[in-house]
Amino acid sequence: MKDSIIVVGSVALDSIQTPFGKINRGVGGSSVYSSLAASFFAKVAVIGVVGKDFPEDFLKKMKKRGINTDGIKRVPGKTFFWRGKYSWDLSTAITLDTQLNVFEKFDPSVPEDLRNSKYLFLANIDPVLQKKVLRQMKFPKTGKYTALDTMNFWIESKKKKIGALLPDLDAILINEAEIRQYTGEHNIIKAAKKLLKAGVKTVVVKKGEYGVGCFSKNEMFFLPAYPLEDAVDPTGAGDSFAGAFMGFLASSEKITWGRIKKAAAYGTVISSFTVSGFGVNGLINLKKSDINKRYKEFVKLVHFEEVKI
Amino acid sequence: MKDSIIVVGSVALDSIQTPFGKINRGVGGSSVYSSLAASFFAKVAVIGVVGKDFPEDFLKKMKKRGINTDGIKRVPGKTFFWRGKYSWDLSTAITLDTQLNVFEKFDPSVPEDLRNSKYLFLANIDPVLQKKVLRQMKFPKTGKYTALDTMNFWIESKKKKIGALLPDLDAILINEAEIRQYTGEHNIIKAAKKLLKAGVKTVVVKKGEYGVGCFSKNEMFFLPAYPLEDAVDPTGAGDSFAGAFMGFLASSEKITWGRIKKAAAYGTVISSFTVSGFGVNGLINLKKSDINKRYKEFVKLVHFEEVKI
Repeated sequence: MKDSIIVVGSVALDSIQTPFGKINRGVGGSSVYSSLAASFFAKVAVIGVVGKDFPEDFLKKMKKRGINTDGIKRVPGKTFFWRGKYSWDLSTAITLDTQLNVFEKFDPSVPEDLRNSKYLFLANIDPVLQKKVLRQMKFPKTGKYTALDTMNFWIESKKKKIGALLPDLDAILINEAEIRQYTGEHNIIKAAKKLLKAGVKTVVVKKGEYGVGCFSKNEMFFLPAYPLEDAVDPTGAGDSFAGAFMGFLASSEKITWGRIKKAAAYGTVISSFTVSGFGVNGLINLKKSDINKRYKEFVKLVHFEEVKI
Repeated sequence: MKDSIIVVGSVALDSIQTPFGKINRGVGGSSVYSSLAASFFAKVAVIGVVGKDFPEDFLKKMKKRGINTDGIKRVPGKTFFWRGKYSWDLSTAITLDTQLNVFEKFDPSVPEDLRNSKYLFLANIDPVLQKKVLRQMKFPKTGKYTALDTMNFWIESKKKKIGALLPDLDAILINEAEIRQYTGEHNIIKAAKKLLKAGVKTVVVKKGEYGVGCFSKNEMFFLPAYPLEDAVDPTGAGDSFAGAFMGFLASSEKITWGRIKKAAAYGTVISSFTVSGFGVNGLINLKKSDINKRYKEFVKLVHFEEVKI
């Protein structure tokens, strides 16, 4: 399992309301969205925790997608629960309720046989836990790729902990408001440069319906979002993007800037499916052929010079 | 002069303040920015009016760029004056003062020898005047291309007048907030479809630092903005985009969707120069070679599949 992507993050039950509908205690969580998205491209193993109320059936669905769920521990108590809503522009989540439940004592441990995996995605959780997982890894000498996602809550409360992780990261995925918050820079290029200077090799700035920007020391790359008429629920869009991004890179022989660009394009495509359904509904029944079809459409939607495809 | 682009719009003196500096009574106006931008690609003739205070020197600079300024009438009184400011995000202009001056009695008349021009750009002015100019034109039987820009002020006060022009337009250029205001649709695809249904053939939605979307009956196309660290003044960015868009199309043997995509890319590139300087400073000393260089950079910044260039 050397080429598995280890995904550590939340497994949750979410109650979500948007102007287009709602879902009650649907499966969610950063590691669920990102592992589902990554599973189209590479082997994935999830490290997480659930309570007695988490549907066994859903874990089976994840296994069916080839995801190793052995690292998802079921413990007494209730699963992490989040209730939130969005207004018409679907841009910002308003948290109405957060119940940590079993997540409060989550002490992630990567199974021994997975510690020499090459790819690690630290989905959005407490940076103290992200660090713990990173230190457990024994990356192979042939190379590794580590990425981290975070959110405003951790930037507010544990900014230094995130900063301490940056030199060990190949990529950080962060949204536009968060990178401004973290760096104090309004201009996204200047903000990205600050993070690069802090040691991370690639900065991916997610701008929701306005797409994504990727930054490394010598390169930049920008994509608009895949245009949708029927966006209904943005929950998990960023996690799905990250999962597909990691998955595509893990399927690459060598990680070059060209592969990072395509990874961002696949991330964009997959997250467009995510926001078309409530919770994981847009993702769970997706086929690789749907992804490939939309990827080709996306090429036509954003390329203005002739391409060889 | 059959292939000239006729540009009708404002010629102005602007006092602009942004967090990055200011300019006092600098030359501006929708037809100035758009004709300067178009002049890199095609012949342009401007219809407008100025007062005694407008610098003759600047008209010479426009002529030097090959722009036919015979249609800019100098009349007694003062030139149209606008004073505005922008906050840190440079996204929305706050108007502090507008003095119509000679513009109040502006009665545009296209010189006889220009009425059979193929290309007409109705820059942002009163839709009643835009209609008047459109009716003066005697487009050649071999084809024509007409585009219109407008703004929130006219949508509020003269929406029906704009609507009546749509069936005669090949393209409308409109910003994101304005198309939402005009159509009552938050979703940009749905909003664009409403305008297409009203008769215009192509809708170009300008999203400032988030780029642009182009819509026709059967096609869509999206571009991020050209990334800038040094944006200082967004005044004229939309007008410059429109001018380059029209100019590039006028330089095309045949106007296809492929050409429209490239026209949007050139529009993006030129407006990036505009916002890098105060007023017209970013545009007036620009060379075609600067544009072509940045266009090539832009291709690399947004294409993720291999291109032939």
